[in-house]
Amino acid sequence: MKAVVLERVGEIAIREIDLPTSPGPDDVLIDIDTVGICGSDIHYYTHGRIGPFVVEAPMVLGHEASGVVSQIGARVRDLKPGDRVCMEPGVPASNSRAVKLGAYNVDPDVVFWATPPVHGCLAPQVVHPAGFTFKMPDHVSFAEGAMVEPFAIGVQAAARAQITPGDVALVLGAGPIGIMCALALLAGGCSQVIISDLVDEKLAVAAAYDNVLPVNIRDTDLASVVDRTTGNWGADIVVEASGARTAFDGLFEMVRPAGTVVLVGMPPDPVPLDIVAAQAREVRIETVFRYANVFDRALNLIASGTVDLKPLISGTFPFDQSVAAFERAAYGNASDVKLQIKVTA
Amino acid sequence: MKAVVLERVGEIAIREIDLPTSPGPDDVLIDIDTVGICGSDIHYYTHGRIGPFVVEAPMVLGHEASGVVSQIGARVRDLKPGDRVCMEPGVPASNSRAVKLGAYNVDPDVVFWATPPVHGCLAPQVVHPAGFTFKMPDHVSFAEGAMVEPFAIGVQAAARAQITPGDVALVLGAGPIGIMCALALLAGGCSQVIISDLVDEKLAVAAAYDNVLPVNIRDTDLASVVDRTTGNWGADIVVEASGARTAFDGLFEMVRPAGTVVLVGMPPDPVPLDIVAAQAREVRIETVFRYANVFDRALNLIASGTVDLKPLISGTFPFDQSVAAFERAAYGNASDVKLQIKVTA
Amino acid sequence: MKAVVLERVGEIAIREIDLPTSPGPDDVLIDIDTVGICGSDIHYYTHGRIGPFVVEAPMVLGHEASGVVSQIGARVRDLKPGDRVCMEPGVPASNSRAVKLGAYNVDPDVVFWATPPVHGCLAPQVVHPAGFTFKMPDHVSFAEGAMVEPFAIGVQAAARAQITPGDVALVLGAGPIGIMCALALLAGGCSQVIISDLVDEKLAVAAAYDNVLPVNIRDTDLASVVDRTTGNWGADIVVEASGARTAFDGLFEMVRPAGTVVLVGMPPDPVPLDIVAAQAREVRIETVFRYANVFDRALNLIASGTVDLKPLISGTFPFDQSVAAFERAAYGNASDVKLQIKVTA
Amino acid sequence: MKAVVLERVGEIAIREIDLPTSPGPDDVLIDIDTVGICGSDIHYYTHGRIGPFVVEAPMVLGHEASGVVSQIGARVRDLKPGDRVCMEPGVPASNSRAVKLGAYNVDPDVVFWATPPVHGCLAPQVVHPAGFTFKMPDHVSFAEGAMVEPFAIGVQAAARAQITPGDVALVLGAGPIGIMCALALLAGGCSQVIISDLVDEKLAVAAAYDNVLPVNIRDTDLASVVDRTTGNWGADIVVEASGARTAFDGLFEMVRPAGTVVLVGMPPDPVPLDIVAAQAREVRIETVFRYANVFDRALNLIASGTVDLKPLISGTFPFDQSVAAFERAAYGNASDVKLQIKVTA
Repeated sequence: MKAVVLERVGEIAIREIDLPTSPGPDDVLIDIDTVGICGSDIHYYTHGRIGPFVVEAPMVLGHEASGVVSQIGARVRDLKPGDRVCMEPGVPASNSRAVKLGAYNVDPDVVFWATPPVHGCLAPQVVHPAGFTFKMPDHVSFAEGAMVEPFAIGVQAAARAQITPGDVALVLGAGPIGIMCALALLAGGCSQVIISDLVDEKLAVAAAYDNVLPVNIRDTDLASVVDRTTGNWGADIVVEASGARTAFDGLFEMVRPAGTVVLVGMPPDPVPLDIVAAQAREVRIETVFRYANVFDRALNLIASGTVDLKPLISGTFPFDQSVAAFERAAYGNASDVKLQIKVTA
Repeated sequence: MKAVVLERVGEIAIREIDLPTSPGPDDVLIDIDTVGICGSDIHYYTHGRIGPFVVEAPMVLGHEASGVVSQIGARVRDLKPGDRVCMEPGVPASNSRAVKLGAYNVDPDVVFWATPPVHGCLAPQVVHPAGFTFKMPDHVSFAEGAMVEPFAIGVQAAARAQITPGDVALVLGAGPIGIMCALALLAGGCSQVIISDLVDEKLAVAAAYDNVLPVNIRDTDLASVVDRTTGNWGADIVVEASGARTAFDGLFEMVRPAGTVVLVGMPPDPVPLDIVAAQAREVRIETVFRYANVFDRALNLIASGTVDLKPLISGTFPFDQSVAAFERAAYGNASDVKLQIKVTA
Repeated sequence: MKAVVLERVGEIAIREIDLPTSPGPDDVLIDIDTVGICGSDIHYYTHGRIGPFVVEAPMVLGHEASGVVSQIGARVRDLKPGDRVCMEPGVPASNSRAVKLGAYNVDPDVVFWATPPVHGCLAPQVVHPAGFTFKMPDHVSFAEGAMVEPFAIGVQAAARAQITPGDVALVLGAGPIGIMCALALLAGGCSQVIISDLVDEKLAVAAAYDNVLPVNIRDTDLASVVDRTTGNWGADIVVEASGARTAFDGLFEMVRPAGTVVLVGMPPDPVPLDIVAAQAREVRIETVFRYANVFDRALNLIASGTVDLKPLISGTFPFDQSVAAFERAAYGNASDVKLQIKVTA
Repeated sequence: MKAVVLERVGEIAIREIDLPTSPGPDDVLIDIDTVGICGSDIHYYTHGRIGPFVVEAPMVLGHEASGVVSQIGARVRDLKPGDRVCMEPGVPASNSRAVKLGAYNVDPDVVFWATPPVHGCLAPQVVHPAGFTFKMPDHVSFAEGAMVEPFAIGVQAAARAQITPGDVALVLGAGPIGIMCALALLAGGCSQVIISDLVDEKLAVAAAYDNVLPVNIRDTDLASVVDRTTGNWGADIVVEASGARTAFDGLFEMVRPAGTVVLVGMPPDPVPLDIVAAQAREVRIETVFRYANVFDRALNLIASGTVDLKPLISGTFPFDQSVAAFERAAYGNASDVKLQIKVTA
């Protein structure tokens, strides 16, 4: 079938490639409808690697997807052809040690779409385990369905944060991940989220949502805003979603005593951390790696209208303009949050 | 000053009584504006006791209050005269063992308004510790401020539930506490709440909120609704808020494996529980006693507009009609959720 | 092969039966060395059922086992023929919803040895998934290896209790499960365990361990002992391990404010619980169903010498006297904790 | 009275100083028996400051103490003259926000012995709140009683680690704090602790305890030991107790997926952390600041014999040789763990 293939750094082609189309007994075959473009797709495109994962052979891109079940395996009971679905892109080894612990996202043998050498799903059809495929209610669009994956990262951050309802949170970074975290924190019980960035356009996207307080740290002292908002107590939760080295300066001073920091952004190099400052508040630091057990919950929150992600879809491209879509994504308009590709005609 | 005094079972008077008006160094003096009537006030009025707490002397009623700070003690730093406030009515012993553990609500020496022999706050003025008095933003009305206390019980239930964002919950009982729990669960991250009762009027109040699914168990099988809503998996969280013995039949069959039950309702007698059914799902059962560390958070959620409690205020009485207010509350209209008394003219 | 088969209620035979001997790709074949007799084996023998599980066809008994790997499947990497092992007897469906949540013990599709209609392991050989088979250090005997399973229940109770090191615990019931819980609580960080029973012989077995305080409730008031031991504060943790209806009377009065109750014993009928008493202390109630993610840890604690379970092995029978072993177990000597069958010659 | 006073950097005197001797209503007066010397005492002696805490006036040293109650305040109920006690040296503000949350150790207004400008307890008598004074059983010696404080830090680390019984832990650093952490981890449920250091004498002290595996990283690759001990899975818990910058290299590679790191050591400067490595395992990082709610538990574990700290007392000095004691402590013999001063004759 024809798929969007990253041939090598800087070169994407829409071309024929052999991909599986026969579901195993626990799998389904899905006709892909919509695929979102993620920062990681772009990073493989522009840099050819993320940490230890290196593109050494042509690889189909894409892991944020929705579609329609067209065929089911012999043992599949909960899905049937015609079901509109979205898919969790990472599949761990069966009943592995990490899976049994409830931490399947960090199973050393996890297989994840569009992470070398595993093919992604930017193709007309994909075979996927039924257990990682989720039926969408009729009123959730395919475009929204393809937003479940990026939103799931925010939900994982919110879950790890262990919010007490009414908490006040601070999110560092208003890129796509920062915004997903902010929305998930609000949906997950926070009463208010302060969000910081250097770029007004990004902050404006976040600020269009209720209870989001944007702070451009070019001209405003973030710590003062936190102090003012929290009565000099500190934020209950701080989510670092920028991956920027500078975001870690004074980070722990903005958390309340016995508060929580969640590290979502991925700094390319080790970052100096003021451990004594963290200890002085006895901060708990959670880290996030993708997500586990939240995909259905992320879908629930979208389906219930608790969060509305439609304003974050900045553009939709037909399948045959996928290369243009990646180029625009790689260019990085400040106001673009999510670009999507409509695979079906 | 003149206060609303429960003289004995069945007799309430508005009459002169001696109450403190001089704040200690860590206290504030508050001019009371609004006081809500709670089921416990009514129960002392109609039965003269709740469990071990017996009305043996005249007692001022009321513990859901808002007002204005009129005087502050010598060491008070975070409040000043003129501040609009609401008050947490239970005060534990200083740095007691329970307080240090973060569980001050179950401090054996806690003193709680309108719990015999402690006077409540249905009076023009009250002295209260500053640490249990919370400044309200200007846009939060006194009526809403007096709703923080009952909502805090719902927030405590939601906090004990340890919601993962997107969870589906079931609340048994659509009385005032059940509705508070439902709203707190939604504000705290649940994507949907099924709520059950025998009375359509109560369910209608709950159903006016988004993502609340009402079930009248007179004519509908609750377990079937839970199964259908959750794909035969069970609710992530079940909150028992009715206190009715029959609510415990089949309770654990409606929770998902490794799910959570929160017991808020207070059955007057021991209730038969099917422990093996709970074990078969390895259910965690949390109990709730008032609240701790959530009063400010409950206020946050109201102030941010995350929850709107105004529709739950079913009637407001002037101070001199307090007895009529209690009579109506004792009568128990099915559609009355909260009656309030406006203490100031 | 010849196995110990429960033919029907009251009838056990050692006889030929067809059992699998070819490991699948992820399985191992194990030569069984030692199998302990569990209360559930006895209950199926004497009553033919436990709750919904009914013996409707001949079934091999036994689920507490150790042995030697004799053959491995094609994909098995962590075990090899000759490895001395013990086995976790319950296997969930692959990557099921419960497994992914880390709660594989409550997977609705779990398959567990000697739970009808699944055969147990009281046979010379058994095929088992490698992922549920644990290599034992050389110094751990086969007899100890067959104790890992019952001890794992205690470890699960201790894990669910979320012990803070130095906690004081109370265990109700000094039968095999009660003793396992007591030892696991001590190994898991408790500084002292009070244990209660009606039978002196059982208490004597428990009391032979350090930091165990036995209380015969025939002649001693348990609540007074708890008060005296804890300075009128209550036990941090109470584990109900008797399953006796009377054990629930006054149960919550013996827990400290914000303490924990763990329900391990399985009362045959619903038991009246004083919910208001639990709420007055805001007790957290955990339930236990077998165990998850603790089998290796239970083995660790035995291998390290942290617990010594050898004194609990009250008798060992050769395979051909298995029927006599079950008869003695069914008879129920008060001082018998665990009877084992040596399957190999 | 005569006390051990740090006059300024490098100068300690035993001299007359005015200290309170009248207990307030909730206080007790204690005749000090034994005081241990802590690394922080030494650091103030040699450097005059720890982070923001600067010695700007003469200050009595010492915060690890035991003694005998000689007088009690009017409201004290749980202690009486003659009680043998040990004391928790940090006292938070009454019912402060942090106290109510159960995190009184990080109350911004906490007052802690021998932390400038607060006097310590190396004096014949001290006034202290009864709520922070703990009665010792008769068989616990004063020397052991003065060990409760340093052990409490280890217990706090173990409590924050949230051990599952049977976990395997790694402790970096075999100084006094590292050893306390190792012993607390074992007492708190770990089956084995690997401990690393550069100095054989320190490791030898740790290795004298059961289930402690010492690793001198001068000649042995620590990661290999962890891999071998845990079957290439990683330690469940890693406690950083050295404060050494180099200890953070490769730290996260030694934790298992979804494992825990506890930061106890206090590096003087920010330390580069490989955040992506932590995320790849979704590690939870806990920090420790002194302790909260564990002082009585630490005492319980000593009193029960679960831990034996007596071998860690390397020397005892009479009060009038206190200066010599501090000089020896400042010199830092590798095999010295704890030096104590016997204040009573």
